[in-house]
Amino acid sequence: MVDYDSKEWLRYIFSLHKGDTARKLGPVLLAMVVYCGVVAYVVIEYVHPGPDSDLKNIAIMHSLLGFVISTLLVFRTNTAYDRWWEGRKAWGSLTNNSRNLALKLVHILSADDVDSRAFFRAMIPNYAFALKNHLRADFQAGDLEACPGFNPASLNPDKHVPNQVAMHLFSKMDELYQSGTLRPEHLLVLNGEFSSFTEICGICERIHTTPIPYSYSSFLKKFVAVYCLTLPLGYVLSLHYWVIPVVAIVFYVLASLELIAEEIEDPFGTDANDLPTERMAGNIRKAVGDLL
Amino acid sequence: MVDYDSKEWLRYIFSLHKGDTARKLGPVLLAMVVYCGVVAYVVIEYVHPGPDSDLKNIAIMHSLLGFVISTLLVFRTNTAYDRWWEGRKAWGSLTNNSRNLALKLVHILSADDVDSRAFFRAMIPNYAFALKNHLRADFQAGDLEACPGFNPASLNPDKHVPNQVAMHLFSKMDELYQSGTLRPEHLLVLNGEFSSFTEICGICERIHTTPIPYSYSSFLKKFVAVYCLTLPLGYVLSLHYWVIPVVAIVFYVLASLELIAEEIEDPFGTDANDLPTERMAGNIRKAVGDLL
Amino acid sequence: MVDYDSKEWLRYIFSLHKGDTARKLGPVLLAMVVYCGVVAYVVIEYVHPGPDSDLKNIAIMHSLLGFVISTLLVFRTNTAYDRWWEGRKAWGSLTNNSRNLALKLVHILSADDVDSRAFFRAMIPNYAFALKNHLRADFQAGDLEACPGFNPASLNPDKHVPNQVAMHLFSKMDELYQSGTLRPEHLLVLNGEFSSFTEICGICERIHTTPIPYSYSSFLKKFVAVYCLTLPLGYVLSLHYWVIPVVAIVFYVLASLELIAEEIEDPFGTDANDLPTERMAGNIRKAVGDLL
Amino acid sequence: MVDYDSKEWLRYIFSLHKGDTARKLGPVLLAMVVYCGVVAYVVIEYVHPGPDSDLKNIAIMHSLLGFVISTLLVFRTNTAYDRWWEGRKAWGSLTNNSRNLALKLVHILSADDVDSRAFFRAMIPNYAFALKNHLRADFQAGDLEACPGFNPASLNPDKHVPNQVAMHLFSKMDELYQSGTLRPEHLLVLNGEFSSFTEICGICERIHTTPIPYSYSSFLKKFVAVYCLTLPLGYVLSLHYWVIPVVAIVFYVLASLELIAEEIEDPFGTDANDLPTERMAGNIRKAVGDLL
Amino acid sequence: MVDYDSKEWLRYIFSLHKGDTARKLGPVLLAMVVYCGVVAYVVIEYVHPGPDSDLKNIAIMHSLLGFVISTLLVFRTNTAYDRWWEGRKAWGSLTNNSRNLALKLVHILSADDVDSRAFFRAMIPNYAFALKNHLRADFQAGDLEACPGFNPASLNPDKHVPNQVAMHLFSKMDELYQSGTLRPEHLLVLNGEFSSFTEICGICERIHTTPIPYSYSSFLKKFVAVYCLTLPLGYVLSLHYWVIPVVAIVFYVLASLELIAEEIEDPFGTDANDLPTERMAGNIRKAVGDLL
Repeated sequence: MVDYDSKEWLRYIFSLHKGDTARKLGPVLLAMVVYCGVVAYVVIEYVHPGPDSDLKNIAIMHSLLGFVISTLLVFRTNTAYDRWWEGRKAWGSLTNNSRNLALKLVHILSADDVDSRAFFRAMIPNYAFALKNHLRADFQAGDLEACPGFNPASLNPDKHVPNQVAMHLFSKMDELYQSGTLRPEHLLVLNGEFSSFTEICGICERIHTTPIPYSYSSFLKKFVAVYCLTLPLGYVLSLHYWVIPVVAIVFYVLASLELIAEEIEDPFGTDANDLPTERMAGNIRKAVGDLL
Repeated sequence: MVDYDSKEWLRYIFSLHKGDTARKLGPVLLAMVVYCGVVAYVVIEYVHPGPDSDLKNIAIMHSLLGFVISTLLVFRTNTAYDRWWEGRKAWGSLTNNSRNLALKLVHILSADDVDSRAFFRAMIPNYAFALKNHLRADFQAGDLEACPGFNPASLNPDKHVPNQVAMHLFSKMDELYQSGTLRPEHLLVLNGEFSSFTEICGICERIHTTPIPYSYSSFLKKFVAVYCLTLPLGYVLSLHYWVIPVVAIVFYVLASLELIAEEIEDPFGTDANDLPTERMAGNIRKAVGDLL
Repeated sequence: MVDYDSKEWLRYIFSLHKGDTARKLGPVLLAMVVYCGVVAYVVIEYVHPGPDSDLKNIAIMHSLLGFVISTLLVFRTNTAYDRWWEGRKAWGSLTNNSRNLALKLVHILSADDVDSRAFFRAMIPNYAFALKNHLRADFQAGDLEACPGFNPASLNPDKHVPNQVAMHLFSKMDELYQSGTLRPEHLLVLNGEFSSFTEICGICERIHTTPIPYSYSSFLKKFVAVYCLTLPLGYVLSLHYWVIPVVAIVFYVLASLELIAEEIEDPFGTDANDLPTERMAGNIRKAVGDLL
Repeated sequence: MVDYDSKEWLRYIFSLHKGDTARKLGPVLLAMVVYCGVVAYVVIEYVHPGPDSDLKNIAIMHSLLGFVISTLLVFRTNTAYDRWWEGRKAWGSLTNNSRNLALKLVHILSADDVDSRAFFRAMIPNYAFALKNHLRADFQAGDLEACPGFNPASLNPDKHVPNQVAMHLFSKMDELYQSGTLRPEHLLVLNGEFSSFTEICGICERIHTTPIPYSYSSFLKKFVAVYCLTLPLGYVLSLHYWVIPVVAIVFYVLASLELIAEEIEDPFGTDANDLPTERMAGNIRKAVGDLL
Repeated sequence: MVDYDSKEWLRYIFSLHKGDTARKLGPVLLAMVVYCGVVAYVVIEYVHPGPDSDLKNIAIMHSLLGFVISTLLVFRTNTAYDRWWEGRKAWGSLTNNSRNLALKLVHILSADDVDSRAFFRAMIPNYAFALKNHLRADFQAGDLEACPGFNPASLNPDKHVPNQVAMHLFSKMDELYQSGTLRPEHLLVLNGEFSSFTEICGICERIHTTPIPYSYSSFLKKFVAVYCLTLPLGYVLSLHYWVIPVVAIVFYVLASLELIAEEIEDPFGTDANDLPTERMAGNIRKAVGDLL
């Protein structure tokens, strides 16, 4: 994630940050400029359409479809943002549940049960780190902390790693229940937090594996392409060579929206706009360490 | 579901995938082209309307209604997408609850209770497979795994199959409770997961059996038809034969939106855009097998 | 509810179903046509406004307000649809809770407690039927099934019938609890389902008794009326007699949206677009009968 | 709240109900008409701008901003409606929880514990009445019913009245728990309903005390004012004296939306569009009286 | 937060409150006016473009992109408002949970356990004050009330202060549980309220630390800048020097929306539009003091 102060307007307007779409769209924008230049050159120098030419009226189509394309792109923006925000909520909920679990366990576990405390102090944050890497299809044993009863090397990277960490957590909880440290009411009090881990993992997996339906994604790209490629035809007679910057700006705006949506809708990677899952997992480790 | 990488623009713009609306709309688009051609031919060659003809002003209607039709189609897109996403959430929740149930049962059941473990290892995923087929009005005994205490052939395909599977799960749980393996607190801890199965089934059935109200669906189709069929009348005088591609593109855009919405709003079938319920049920079987 | 296959376009475009707004709007549409005809006739034949007449510019108002009226109608459509869908969700939830209750009770009740089983087999679906009729301000003792401990004729039709049915359910549950059949943990496990009945009833009553605020409803109707009645004034000079079909189509579109919204926002009646509460209550009876 | 049948169009279009914005806007509308008249008179009779005057082009601004103002007003409408509907949901939930509490208590309390029954029969509805008055910054001891253990006169009107009523309810519950009438499982079963009272009160207080942020409210009013006051300048040359009704209608529409939103967003008062909290509290008293 | 009566239109339209965007935008607006003046002067006095100049047609771009920019700004407005409202909901929920905790504890704690009562009377509101300051990256020991068992000076301002307060609350609860004052069922009944504190803190931290993705923020600013800086080019030929106020008003509207959104999306500071967290924490102290 890019940290930024949203109030520094000037810097945003003139700088070209890593996450800026103007940068990524660079080559395509250039191609668009060349295409418009060619169209304008051919029409103006060779075709010489009269002032009554129908060509100008093609712009009717762009004004008829202008509503549709803007509302559709805002629909796209909305759904992508919703996923990003739902992913952020899931990680916020992981933080809350980790903290609450630590707050509850610190009093349930007796002060001299050093091993159990060390176990949960390591394993609760380990779940967050395992989840972060799982969502990046990555396995980093180094991210996980060893503790009495858990050795990161014992995990099977080919199977679902967060589930294996959860299995260790549930085993420990069962061990404490069998030994009478956890009483029945504790089981009920801790049930919400323990169940939440798998639920949060499921939410993140859902967002990660399910992009917007193929039809919409494909249709929107076709639509933007048809719209922008026909733009210079409709406007070359009214704008002449000015058609080049005008179409380039319109294309920049429309393509940026689709581009940002694509980047935002799966927020667990390492793109400029992705969620700082690494930092959040680190915060969980810090908070749990402070409490437990 | 079509798996795709949303960042490969070029392929999407130029390919015509199975799920593409351009393909499905093919015949209707062709009819539209012919219709526009006929209208244009008749008006241009026979009617010869003067430059002051009122015909041109019919386009006023299209610009007045242009905004209504776009916002309505985006409303349609939104509701269809919401159903699709709610269906995806329900299946994600089925995965989470199946995993949590397995995580909890693995410790509640004693290690040597091989039969009970085999029962839940088979039956939890069986619910997902039964639900998948139920939503396709299909019964495939082969999808279900036999286990001690359950024989897929014993199911009555004419009755509600997921309910029958749930009945087996609840019976087993009651048997364990009566025998003292499940203690009262376990009943409470497992209640959420067990109840969720029927709730998820209900959510999917709701989405499956309740399309958007008939009035909206019928009205939208009538509206799109009237709008597009009158388009060539309004624009033939400004576009002449160019009216054919212009109207075709406008129709392609509007009809695509309705078409995608129709396909998306019941996401449990086998269409190109439907949810991969088969794969998700398989993942549940794999995850539960790993855990239990 | 009209059952329909949303993919049969042709039939929808050309047929005039009972639920179609074109049918209901028939007389008003006709009045609109006559009104436009008179306006057009008077203006064209008697007023003879010159080409520079200000009359034409009244259309400025329609284009300024065109955005507002469409976005407002989509707001109206959205809120009406949300109520309809919330009503559908409530009934879906009633189905889920009825099934879960049956699934839980079938194992809690001993196999030879024939009376209790018969009681719940009848009374759980009875709640759905009582609710259906309650929402139609109707009382049909014939819809309710008698069983040991309940006689439909004993209900007081002047008081809240679903509450009376719920009272019977809670009394039975208390009887089973007092006799020790229901243990404390059962009370907790069944609490969610039992409480849900009254909550669902409350949700349906809320939707049924609270239409959109009077101001919006009244304002929208005034707005649509002013907008459409001034339309022929603004466009008669550019469209002459063509103004009649154009205004009729615009009015059909705008009035249809308000009309559908009105019908949809209270979905528990017997209109063409209302929810099939009768069929859903029947399905609950079938499902509970299968399980219990 | 105005009770109305949303299907009687004619009456709504032509009547001017107490809740109608046309009535409230009356004086401002008149001022607007006078202002437009003056502008039109001065421009037409004294300024005599030529046909090429730039004045006409000021309308460009109105068409550029037309879309912004409509989408903003719909945003305003949406948020106001959401608060109104959330307030309605809170009161619906109060009804549901009151009924469920009565349904549960009627069986937990022994039939001869007349005092406790009378206590809850009075106090559950008293909470609704106390809340209604609290939200109107009003205290009406007469609305509250006395019962064994509670005297409305004992309430301190300067402190939070619903909290004082809740305190009585919790005290009674604790008394019953101490005496063994309420068993531990009952405490858990009733916990949801008891906690909900304070939560519902909090939701209503939140809606009541937090209007839309000052910036939006102030900005929207400034925007509508600037937009409408400059309208006659831009259109006087194309509409001459017709500019008066046109601007008046546009102003009526835009100001109505802001006006309705203002009235709707705090729905607990006694305005024409406010929720019928008085009637709803009465219904709770009736329902609880029937059950308990 | 600015307290205001949303019905006093005149005051809002003509006053320039601290929270008004017109004030904050002052310098930038002035720069815009100067820029437009220069552009107009150069074009009108030196360039003398003919009536057929393409310059005028640049405005085509503004009308094509006008929809996109408005729908995007409304998207921005919506998401910012949603965060503000979610923050308000979180604080409302903190109030509810604090009150419910007090209502429950007052009866669970025996009347003569003065110390415990004093502890909760001080510590429940202390959490709200600690959270308020935490969200402002501020530590004010003076805001926290000392009580038996807690000394504000003992808090470590470099660590997470609300977590330290929560730790004290959970320790006290555990102490009461170990001593038998809290019975198992009380643990379950109080679990929701105790867990909610950390959850609310997490929600506020999420809103506070996660602005809208950098790409959107940066893109919107670039878009508004390009749009407004090119406006005078497109309209100078139709408006001449009138282009200055027109562009200034358009810029004021568009920039205000982005500006308000920026201020609103992190509502926990001390800006004019921020939530009155100080007052709300004070109300919690008052309410808990009244109850406990």
